[in-house]
Amino acid sequence: MIKVGIIGVGTVGTSVAQILKDNADVISARAGCEIVVKRGVVKNLAKDRGLDIVITDDIDDVLNDPEIDIVVELMGGVEEPFEVVKKALKGGKAVVTANKALLAYHRYELAELAKDIAFEYEASVAGGIPIINALRDGLSANHIESIMGIMNGTCNYMMTKMTNEGVAYDDILKESQELGYAEADPSFDVGGYDAAHKLLILASIAYGIDAKPEDILIEGIENVSQDDIGFAKEFGYAIKLLGIAKKDKNEVELRVHACLISQDEMIAKIDGVMNGISVVGDKVGETLYYGAGAGGDATASAVVANIIDIARSGKSTPMLGFDKPMEGKLTLKAPENIRSKYYLRINVSDKTGVLARITKLFEDNNISIETMLQRPASSDSANLLFSTHIALERDIQTMMKEIEALDFVNSAPVMIRIV
Amino acid sequence: MIKVGIIGVGTVGTSVAQILKDNADVISARAGCEIVVKRGVVKNLAKDRGLDIVITDDIDDVLNDPEIDIVVELMGGVEEPFEVVKKALKGGKAVVTANKALLAYHRYELAELAKDIAFEYEASVAGGIPIINALRDGLSANHIESIMGIMNGTCNYMMTKMTNEGVAYDDILKESQELGYAEADPSFDVGGYDAAHKLLILASIAYGIDAKPEDILIEGIENVSQDDIGFAKEFGYAIKLLGIAKKDKNEVELRVHACLISQDEMIAKIDGVMNGISVVGDKVGETLYYGAGAGGDATASAVVANIIDIARSGKSTPMLGFDKPMEGKLTLKAPENIRSKYYLRINVSDKTGVLARITKLFEDNNISIETMLQRPASSDSANLLFSTHIALERDIQTMMKEIEALDFVNSAPVMIRIV
Repeated sequence: MIKVGIIGVGTVGTSVAQILKDNADVISARAGCEIVVKRGVVKNLAKDRGLDIVITDDIDDVLNDPEIDIVVELMGGVEEPFEVVKKALKGGKAVVTANKALLAYHRYELAELAKDIAFEYEASVAGGIPIINALRDGLSANHIESIMGIMNGTCNYMMTKMTNEGVAYDDILKESQELGYAEADPSFDVGGYDAAHKLLILASIAYGIDAKPEDILIEGIENVSQDDIGFAKEFGYAIKLLGIAKKDKNEVELRVHACLISQDEMIAKIDGVMNGISVVGDKVGETLYYGAGAGGDATASAVVANIIDIARSGKSTPMLGFDKPMEGKLTLKAPENIRSKYYLRINVSDKTGVLARITKLFEDNNISIETMLQRPASSDSANLLFSTHIALERDIQTMMKEIEALDFVNSAPVMIRIV
Repeated sequence: MIKVGIIGVGTVGTSVAQILKDNADVISARAGCEIVVKRGVVKNLAKDRGLDIVITDDIDDVLNDPEIDIVVELMGGVEEPFEVVKKALKGGKAVVTANKALLAYHRYELAELAKDIAFEYEASVAGGIPIINALRDGLSANHIESIMGIMNGTCNYMMTKMTNEGVAYDDILKESQELGYAEADPSFDVGGYDAAHKLLILASIAYGIDAKPEDILIEGIENVSQDDIGFAKEFGYAIKLLGIAKKDKNEVELRVHACLISQDEMIAKIDGVMNGISVVGDKVGETLYYGAGAGGDATASAVVANIIDIARSGKSTPMLGFDKPMEGKLTLKAPENIRSKYYLRINVSDKTGVLARITKLFEDNNISIETMLQRPASSDSANLLFSTHIALERDIQTMMKEIEALDFVNSAPVMIRIV
């Protein structure tokens, strides 16, 4: 019998306990032994969770219990859970977590501590989709060329509604908050940070690359408007918030931002709160993984799968996929050196000479225009819509500042990268 | 250092050897050790394969070599490879295979022999997509409610071309043969048998159910015509050859056949030679896995991933996912008891009273009509197109025979199940 302690019995923790009970038949048949929750740790002992597990408010009741084999960390945060899981690992207990923030900051220190004991984290990326499993084990024969994915269901829900129903950004944000998809402070989701944490975890498994959120390009969807959605639809694109990891010789670029992506791509067809991650390997080609990226039961499904793995075989795979560092290690590409195609929307006063002045800036910055459209925006202003050929991020950023400084430009230009 | 022997150095075997060489850097970093091919077994020693591995034409040179740790079986067939892998396992060697036919017939005997030694087979289903991995490990916390997938790239290529380009069945079959997607005798693919072998493997992992190809409903795409494709498109459906496993109380239905599936479903959006498998778990909801289902490198990617797994941890997971049988085992539903919605196309001579006679047969057989359309087929014949509400397979089969016997019915009615 394997005994589990759950630290943090909120939505996911409750689902973990419930699944271990509801599905005990199939779980014990697969694991080869019974798996039971010995104790759960909560902050508020008075709250009824409708579960028949023993509850405590002292984490040490789990960490110091010699009968507990596996600690499930679902408390949230970064430094506090880091201390807790370090103690658990040092005490010889396997750890399962769904905490992407913890991993975004401390995964390499944890991998060092978890050399001989299992530390699993399937639920930390894309909830119920077994993407860690696929990338670390299923695709291990490949050099990973790229990872590109919808890693945040809130943003994808909002973009889908804006596209299919023409809802304005502010209205759909409000609706998402009412539905519980977005937090009262939505910036962690709509600002791209949640997706960035997940991308960093995947990048470690694919490339062995050590980066923190502050090292990479992170933008959100706050500036995407119906004007942009309309242009995208007209030209056969969808707009999605994507996490992207891409190998370019010995460098890896990591970035999270809104993207224009061809409607023909599988990723573009993923709508609503669902997540989907495309991984291209040098041998396998493109593979794609789709499913629920959040929600108590879907996330808990991944947590319990990790518990079953550990019950079956203890430590079987290096935590981040690499047993020893790669020779000739890959390094992080500086964000300003990223190359991409770009879409730009510039709102200008309707005067003569405007287009000439702006296109001159494209030329001065070595940015080649692929398509250009002018559309009236109001009685005396127009939207200039550009798509570029491949250009350098640094040049685009410079040009954007120059454009914004022009007296006939009414607001900061909107830029969305095209993939 | 792990030493591998490859039995059968054809397209996939050559790719396996090539990947182990090309990607040795990342493979050894992930596996924690070097992995080399010690010997390959071929039938024709004279043929140059452009590889620098030692070649023999005697299988025993691999089976009896104490230095070889892992035997990769890629010889094809059923009984001959069965004898070979039995010998390998009994000799203490781990086995990796891509052979779905071997598993469709002998997986339970092999699981018995492989209780304490690794026997892996990721490449046997959906080529490069790590679906065994996902189902056996990633979704292990779930009761699997259903599996539904495009498991044969040849059929999907043909259906896609028929749908998008209006090509006739016979023409696209010829083209597929010229492109090497279909064999000279295409019946194994277009008859649904290849997909059935894969479905049986997945059903064992999901349900622990023991069935052979002859126990389940298997139909192909041979009778799908442009008439049916046109109707499907008009009503928002795609036609796909699907393998389906579905739990219904204590029974599991297993079937392979052409399906009408709503264009909104992710599975319906998978085009060309690509494979895609949707798995619904009671906790995780729907997850979907997409990628190349065939081809030397994609298939070899899965074979090498299995080799890396074994190098990392030896035997870590029960071969078919269950360490011990489930209590209250699930049983196979008899094909005639399957319930589905159906599409029927009946070519009739254009006479009075025809529709009344046919709709009476629906009534007599307890089959409720959902939609009905009549379309002219030629100057003196018409196509009657029906879709039904949920009906019983047995009743549909009875009615189809009765319809075919009517003097004004010009050919056997076409029936396609709707999912």
